[in-house]
Amino acid sequence: MSADSFYNPSRMSNFALLKDLIQPAKTKIVLLVMDGLGGLPRASDDQTELEAAHTPNLDRLAREGCLGQHYPVDVGITSGSGPGHLGLFGYDPIHYEIGRGVLEAVGIGFPLTGRDVCARGNFCSLDAQGNISDRRAGRIPTSTCEALVKKINAANIKVADGVEIFVEPVQDYRFVVVMRGDGLQANIDETDPQRTGVPPLTALARDAASERTAALFNSWIKQATAVIANDHPANGMTLRGFASDPALPKYKDVYGLNAGVIAVYPMYRGVSSLVGMDVIPHHAHSVAEEFETAATVWNDYDFLFIHVKYTDSRGEDGNFDAKAKVIEEVDAALPGLMGLKPDVLVVTGDHSTPSQLKAHSWHPVPLMIWAPATVRRDRSESFGERACAHGGLGTIHAADIMPLALAHAGRLAKYGA
Amino acid sequence: MSADSFYNPSRMSNFALLKDLIQPAKTKIVLLVMDGLGGLPRASDDQTELEAAHTPNLDRLAREGCLGQHYPVDVGITSGSGPGHLGLFGYDPIHYEIGRGVLEAVGIGFPLTGRDVCARGNFCSLDAQGNISDRRAGRIPTSTCEALVKKINAANIKVADGVEIFVEPVQDYRFVVVMRGDGLQANIDETDPQRTGVPPLTALARDAASERTAALFNSWIKQATAVIANDHPANGMTLRGFASDPALPKYKDVYGLNAGVIAVYPMYRGVSSLVGMDVIPHHAHSVAEEFETAATVWNDYDFLFIHVKYTDSRGEDGNFDAKAKVIEEVDAALPGLMGLKPDVLVVTGDHSTPSQLKAHSWHPVPLMIWAPATVRRDRSESFGERACAHGGLGTIHAADIMPLALAHAGRLAKYGA
Repeated sequence: MSADSFYNPSRMSNFALLKDLIQPAKTKIVLLVMDGLGGLPRASDDQTELEAAHTPNLDRLAREGCLGQHYPVDVGITSGSGPGHLGLFGYDPIHYEIGRGVLEAVGIGFPLTGRDVCARGNFCSLDAQGNISDRRAGRIPTSTCEALVKKINAANIKVADGVEIFVEPVQDYRFVVVMRGDGLQANIDETDPQRTGVPPLTALARDAASERTAALFNSWIKQATAVIANDHPANGMTLRGFASDPALPKYKDVYGLNAGVIAVYPMYRGVSSLVGMDVIPHHAHSVAEEFETAATVWNDYDFLFIHVKYTDSRGEDGNFDAKAKVIEEVDAALPGLMGLKPDVLVVTGDHSTPSQLKAHSWHPVPLMIWAPATVRRDRSESFGERACAHGGLGTIHAADIMPLALAHAGRLAKYGA
Repeated sequence: MSADSFYNPSRMSNFALLKDLIQPAKTKIVLLVMDGLGGLPRASDDQTELEAAHTPNLDRLAREGCLGQHYPVDVGITSGSGPGHLGLFGYDPIHYEIGRGVLEAVGIGFPLTGRDVCARGNFCSLDAQGNISDRRAGRIPTSTCEALVKKINAANIKVADGVEIFVEPVQDYRFVVVMRGDGLQANIDETDPQRTGVPPLTALARDAASERTAALFNSWIKQATAVIANDHPANGMTLRGFASDPALPKYKDVYGLNAGVIAVYPMYRGVSSLVGMDVIPHHAHSVAEEFETAATVWNDYDFLFIHVKYTDSRGEDGNFDAKAKVIEEVDAALPGLMGLKPDVLVVTGDHSTPSQLKAHSWHPVPLMIWAPATVRRDRSESFGERACAHGGLGTIHAADIMPLALAHAGRLAKYGA
């Protein structure tokens, strides 16, 4: 028996068990995620970004609540934002892989269906012999990408009866193509040869069931490439990450929750929609505006996931002070959220992004559960990494968070007599 | 998919995932294991051996690093040294059983191959009717065991063309026999009837594939017993724990690490060699000499496992002060190791051996990760059981340690986008 076939540790919620225990309640849960929240202490005062930030509201909630820390995917594993959020939502990110084509599509807010196969596209430069001379077409600006996509869409390319094609620009030289029809399958090799001096590859099916889809994509690639053949520098394309909707279990089914997401970045709305959250339309830019959006839909949902992006962005910039400032912005806006009187508030991150590392990291993520009716206060004095390491929840996996939130919300019955 | 079939938490490293994430680096990792490190507080001052020991160097590393505690096999399970080390190496000790014959063979430093079947042997006393009168031959001393093995080896017993046989003394009445050849299989019942007054059993194959090997062992037993038939009190033998190399995944393959072991006791070299570590030859007796050995091979390895035996031995002796003294010896020698400038140092044990219990125990094991570039300091003031229980790493499984070490060494890429 190989290690591969044996290893199957699940970090996901035990959905079968939860389904048996779920009971209705009128309580409301808020999952407030500061992306990349976890940090490292700086040398000057041994404080992390979260510890250094002035956060009287979060600190009050920490005194009233219970702290802990979580590993989003597993101990030692640095998580991307996609897997990190799946973990927070209670889905094992190793078991439930979201293909890159799907991540790209949901990342731009494309409304996927179960009949879709998505691929990420790169515009590239081809020489007179049809060989790739630049895999990224000189990193054309997004506006050029948009113009190329518009031209391709205007050509109204057909590949087969009953098959629709959607092409959308993403950023720079990147676009996404979605093919919709019955029986499409995504087990297809990429067409990017990963080097120059050779032509793009033909899309090859890795199994018999995907052969028709591969042929349809090859037909589309040929026609779409003809449309842009005289453009410069982008006169060709490669497709990668063929994938279809992973058909994740839905929040309503596994948790009995009517859930919505408030996020500024499309990628987070996309991942949330894959687990069945409603994407709540809004024009929010600031955290305060996100909380105002929550107020407008407060009566419509049992569960709101509110995503704050810029903690991660400033961490990746390597800007300790700016990351701390985003945390302070959240703290200052918090009364707007608490005024809605959630029954359970979870405050955490999807992974750590220490500004010292300018990157995601594997360090455990601070976690707070606030639930005035039922929480076992742990005598924490403030919300920070070291307080969380000593917190009453201990060190857990991200997938443990949803059952905890449901329990505090009175939504889980007793197991056994 | 049912939750039941999916839910199967394993305590081993996710080798398949790690393989995808492993990236090369020039960093060096040291795993320093004080065997049986964990202890219990004594009544007089409520200090454990580790806490009572004067350890200025370990305490400084604790202030600079991050502490935690680990369970070698699982919560509540008292681990032997073999499983404890497999856990530290990231291999689920419940899944990867090292057959007792193999443990006995690697325990005496026998260089196993994939064509070997090993068995533990006991010399016993047989009466005139050929029934066992003493299963341990009056616990003969090792010197008698050695003489018997020498006599058997001198007889140059043959069982089949192309099959080699190696017999080695172990200790007291115990020896090991290794049969080497093509197609040998170890699924064979022991020949020890576990009682006196009956003859040794015939080696019986438990499957068809092992029948030939069982017959060869029976042939060998018959001939070897004839060689010692007139000896006293050991004039017979039983064989147990038939086993072959468990073919563990190797460090190079699963972690991308060029690894070596420095250990005074052969058993630890043996277990390490089973996971692909180079056994580094040395004449070290003291911890300082083990560290000097590390210096001589420092440029040759990415990973060094250094094993300190006597913490466990003194714990098993029930000698609190002597165990603390071994810890102090390690502490005093540490500057020699730190002078080599490892990027990541892990200090821990393979299990607890509280001197009050004079035995291995199930208590969690103190753990320290020191990695100046990336560690989240947790404000620990010293290295000890209670500090570790409050440490920033939380309470984890032994198999989580290797992914953490790899992450701190910059050897794991991000998982997912």
